Amino acid sequence: MNKSTLQKIHNLIKPYIHRTPVLTSKLLNDICEAEVFFKCENFQKMGAFKMRGGVNAILNLTEEQKSKGVVTHSSGNFAQALSLAAKTLNVKAYIVMPKNAPQVKKDAVKAYGGVIIECDSSTKARETEAARIQKEKGVTFIHPSNQDHVIYGQGTAAIELLEDYHDLEYIFTPVGGGGLLAGTILAANHFSNGCKVIAGEPKEVDDAYRSLISGNIEKNETSNTIADGLRTHLGDRNFPIIKEHVEKIIRVEEDDIIKAMKLIWERMKIIVEPSAAVAFAAVLKEKTDIKNKKIGVILSGGNVDLSNLSFK
Amino acid sequence: MNKSTLQKIHNLIKPYIHRTPVLTSKLLNDICEAEVFFKCENFQKMGAFKMRGGVNAILNLTEEQKSKGVVTHSSGNFAQALSLAAKTLNVKAYIVMPKNAPQVKKDAVKAYGGVIIECDSSTKARETEAARIQKEKGVTFIHPSNQDHVIYGQGTAAIELLEDYHDLEYIFTPVGGGGLLAGTILAANHFSNGCKVIAGEPKEVDDAYRSLISGNIEKNETSNTIADGLRTHLGDRNFPIIKEHVEKIIRVEEDDIIKAMKLIWERMKIIVEPSAAVAFAAVLKEKTDIKNKKIGVILSGGNVDLSNLSFK
Repeated sequence: MNKSTLQKIHNLIKPYIHRTPVLTSKLLNDICEAEVFFKCENFQKMGAFKMRGGVNAILNLTEEQKSKGVVTHSSGNFAQALSLAAKTLNVKAYIVMPKNAPQVKKDAVKAYGGVIIECDSSTKARETEAARIQKEKGVTFIHPSNQDHVIYGQGTAAIELLEDYHDLEYIFTPVGGGGLLAGTILAANHFSNGCKVIAGEPKEVDDAYRSLISGNIEKNETSNTIADGLRTHLGDRNFPIIKEHVEKIIRVEEDDIIKAMKLIWERMKIIVEPSAAVAFAAVLKEKTDIKNKKIGVILSGGNVDLSNLSFK
Repeated sequence: MNKSTLQKIHNLIKPYIHRTPVLTSKLLNDICEAEVFFKCENFQKMGAFKMRGGVNAILNLTEEQKSKGVVTHSSGNFAQALSLAAKTLNVKAYIVMPKNAPQVKKDAVKAYGGVIIECDSSTKARETEAARIQKEKGVTFIHPSNQDHVIYGQGTAAIELLEDYHDLEYIFTPVGGGGLLAGTILAANHFSNGCKVIAGEPKEVDDAYRSLISGNIEKNETSNTIADGLRTHLGDRNFPIIKEHVEKIIRVEEDDIIKAMKLIWERMKIIVEPSAAVAFAAVLKEKTDIKNKKIGVILSGGNVDLSNLSFK
């Protein structure tokens, strides 16, 4: 992967994504004792950066593949992203989701035109069902985070951020499946002057942190975090990039995630999901080491189920 | 009041306020069957349009008045606005607040440098206390909504909105004390080509609606609305402007306010306070009459006490 290829990918997907704004807050700068630039992927189409990778994956299919369609398994943002990307590009999308996925997520996928295939909630059941659909319908499987064109697409958020602020010294992202983190690393390597990439990860699902130590892809025994987008583990396409280049992975407690999210909601008046707040929680935890630096933070998404709040 | 004076006022306050962004949402356009342009005063300094009027009121004082300071009575956004405006302009601000005002609001006023004077919660007690401070300290009283320079300042949000989108056919604002509505009317009269101004008002505190019918300033018997910024009544400076020029006042139910607020939070990923959602609730209620029109909505503020949500 080189700079001009990444640039071409960015140009290719531009017509189908928003160039999201970068926001700053004097008050949050004061709290961090640094200059923080928030890349607002919560304002991205369907509410998360995943639209970028979904679009890029589909654009890189052959015409024959496009005519048959795509399939993924996800109950989160990638389900919506692939549905909307496919609809935008006139491709059929099958989304394998666990039967017990929240109705609000099923509704969102349907609204974006995805065809839902329900299965049991185990990872095994999802993979089996996706493989069955793939075989039966001749469609192409698109992995939510562990596929080159998905990774490259996710990296375009950081490309834009670095175009706007070329002298950033650090970019913070959350890490779940590893697509955003690996893509951001590629972007920083090719579009910055030595900008380092740091990831935030919930301590409750610290598989990526442990993977860096062991050198192998570790998994999580539990999934007990409010950051529901970060429960998955890394994959063989993104782990090598992360292992080689990530500056560090900072683990954050659940209370830190909630505190970071509340700060962003209250002070910036924007809605970010818990997974997005993990990156900012890591900034707050790393405070002393990044004092007075210029820092980018990828606010990865803004899809929160408000019916869990006191709106009802 | 003429166009060039309003323009001068806008230029005067520009260095001390944010030019807030105008956001749009395809999905909300689809729901409204119209093109809606949201002027995001929730991103204004201290989180609400009131900063505009506060700054303008202080800038129009004499040097002697400035040296002595200002006083207001408010437990809402104007308390914070006058505190921050005064601090920005090196003027002392005394804020008369009821003893039982939420601690979070008192803290915000203190953080912006305002000196809090506590009193009983009745309107009478607040007015008496403010008058006492005014006399004792020789400071100037600034009313939150019923004072010419406050009204003119509030109108600058609509001036900016019309500079960005000069062909708006309607602008919707919430109405409480009447400062924003009257200022918006002045801006529309001078900076648009016949743009009409419509106000949304909670049915629970429909004093402005009743004032239009009776021709006199009516008051509210109760204050039972989630839109806590809109409980006050109109004043003798803004009512004549409103009476003569407002297109109509649309009353909305509490459920409509919550529904409108939830739509904005979920779909636009921004935080607006209930009072701001009242203007959009009015758009939704007026839907059939404004089909396919270009509509501005002033999202008046974003100060919500999140500890009332399920964050704790």
